Amino acid sequence: MVAFPEDFRAELKRLMAWRRDVRHFRTDPVPEAVLERCLQAFAFAPSVGLSEPWRIVRVASPKAREAAVANFEAANARALEGFEGDRARLYASLKLSGMREAPVQLAVFADEETPKGHGLGAATMPETRAYSVVAAVMAFWLMARAEGLGVGWVSILDPERLIADLEVPPSWRLVAYLCVGWPRQEDDRPELERVGWEARKPSLARPIER
Amino acid sequence: MVAFPEDFRAELKRLMAWRRDVRHFRTDPVPEAVLERCLQAFAFAPSVGLSEPWRIVRVASPKAREAAVANFEAANARALEGFEGDRARLYASLKLSGMREAPVQLAVFADEETPKGHGLGAATMPETRAYSVVAAVMAFWLMARAEGLGVGWVSILDPERLIADLEVPPSWRLVAYLCVGWPRQEDDRPELERVGWEARKPSLARPIER
Repeated sequence: MVAFPEDFRAELKRLMAWRRDVRHFRTDPVPEAVLERCLQAFAFAPSVGLSEPWRIVRVASPKAREAAVANFEAANARALEGFEGDRARLYASLKLSGMREAPVQLAVFADEETPKGHGLGAATMPETRAYSVVAAVMAFWLMARAEGLGVGWVSILDPERLIADLEVPPSWRLVAYLCVGWPRQEDDRPELERVGWEARKPSLARPIER
Repeated sequence: MVAFPEDFRAELKRLMAWRRDVRHFRTDPVPEAVLERCLQAFAFAPSVGLSEPWRIVRVASPKAREAAVANFEAANARALEGFEGDRARLYASLKLSGMREAPVQLAVFADEETPKGHGLGAATMPETRAYSVVAAVMAFWLMARAEGLGVGWVSILDPERLIADLEVPPSWRLVAYLCVGWPRQEDDRPELERVGWEARKPSLARPIER
C-alpha cells in the first residue's frame, strides 16, 4: 500500500488550515518556476471521464487587467445595493479582491464542448465538467500555499462580460478568477470570520444518516 | 511566513499523483476514527462568503443503498445507449462504480438556500455554492488518500431521483456521490487511461495569455 506517514498527514492538515482566501498581496513578482510547479497540480486533478476540461487564461496585459477590474467593480457595486444598514456598511468596508495588486491573475474556465473523455460520466450531470475544474483549482490552491503563495478566488464578476473581454470561446464557462501572489499577511482564520461577516460551523462537516 | 519545506511539497505532489478515482474496493470496514479525520477536511475547505453549504448524507441503510445502486444502474444503461460499436463495447466493459462494495458511501449536497454567508460572492455566480462543496470534496479526497483510503466519485446518477429517495430537502443540489474504502489495487495512472478510454494531456495545464 502506498502509505503516507502520520507526520505528513499532520502537515497536510496544517496546510489546509493555512490555505485561506487571500485578498492582500505584495506586488513583487512570483518566479515563473514557482508558478509552473503550482500549475502542475492541474495535470494531477480528477476530471469526469478524463475530460480534463480546464482552460487557463493568464490575465496579464494592461487592457485585460483593466477589463477584469472594471467588471469586478461594477458587480461589487450592484452587490452592495442588495444589503441595508449595518450589513451594507460592513460589506462596503470589506476588501473582496486583490485584483489591483496580485502579480499573477488566472481566469479558469471549463470547456463545455470538449470531446475529450467522450462524455463519460457527464450525461446526467453535465455540471461535473465545471466541478472537475474546481477540483483542479483546489489542488492548485494547496500547492500554491505549500510554496508560500496566497490565492484569492474572486466570484463577484459578470462571467459573460469576462468571456467577451478576454476573447475566449463562448463554449467556455468561467469557473474561477484567481489572484495569486505573496500574501501581505497570513492567518489560519478566514478573513470574513475575523471581520465579523460570518462564523464557521464545524458541525456541518458531520454526516446525517440515511 | 508559514512555510512548508521542499520535502513536504514533494510528498504533496506524490499524494496528488496517487489520488485516483477508485472503483475497486475491499469490503472490510473503515474505522470510524479514520473517517472522522478525513471529514475534518470539510471544515477547512473554502466556501463562497463563508456559506459552508456542504450537507453530507451517509448512505448506510440497505434501503438507501439499494435505491442508489438502482439509480446508478438505470443511468449507466441509458449512458451505454449513447455509444456505438467498439466504443460501446469498451464502455460496457468498464467498472464505473464501487457502489456494491464500498463500505462507506457519502452523498454530498450543496444547500442552495442557506442564509449562511448572506449571499456574499454568489450574486452573479450562484454556482459558486456548489463549487465550494466540490472544493471540500477535493480536500476530503486528499485527506482520505493520505490515510490510505480510496475514493471514487460517481456521477452517473439521476440527481432528482436520489434527492427523493434519500428524502433530503429539494433545495439541496447533489454535487457528488462518493464511494470510500480500502482500495483493492492502487495505481498512479487513471483507470480510464489504463483501459484505453482516454489519455491525459498535461499541456492543458499551461495557460494561454491575454
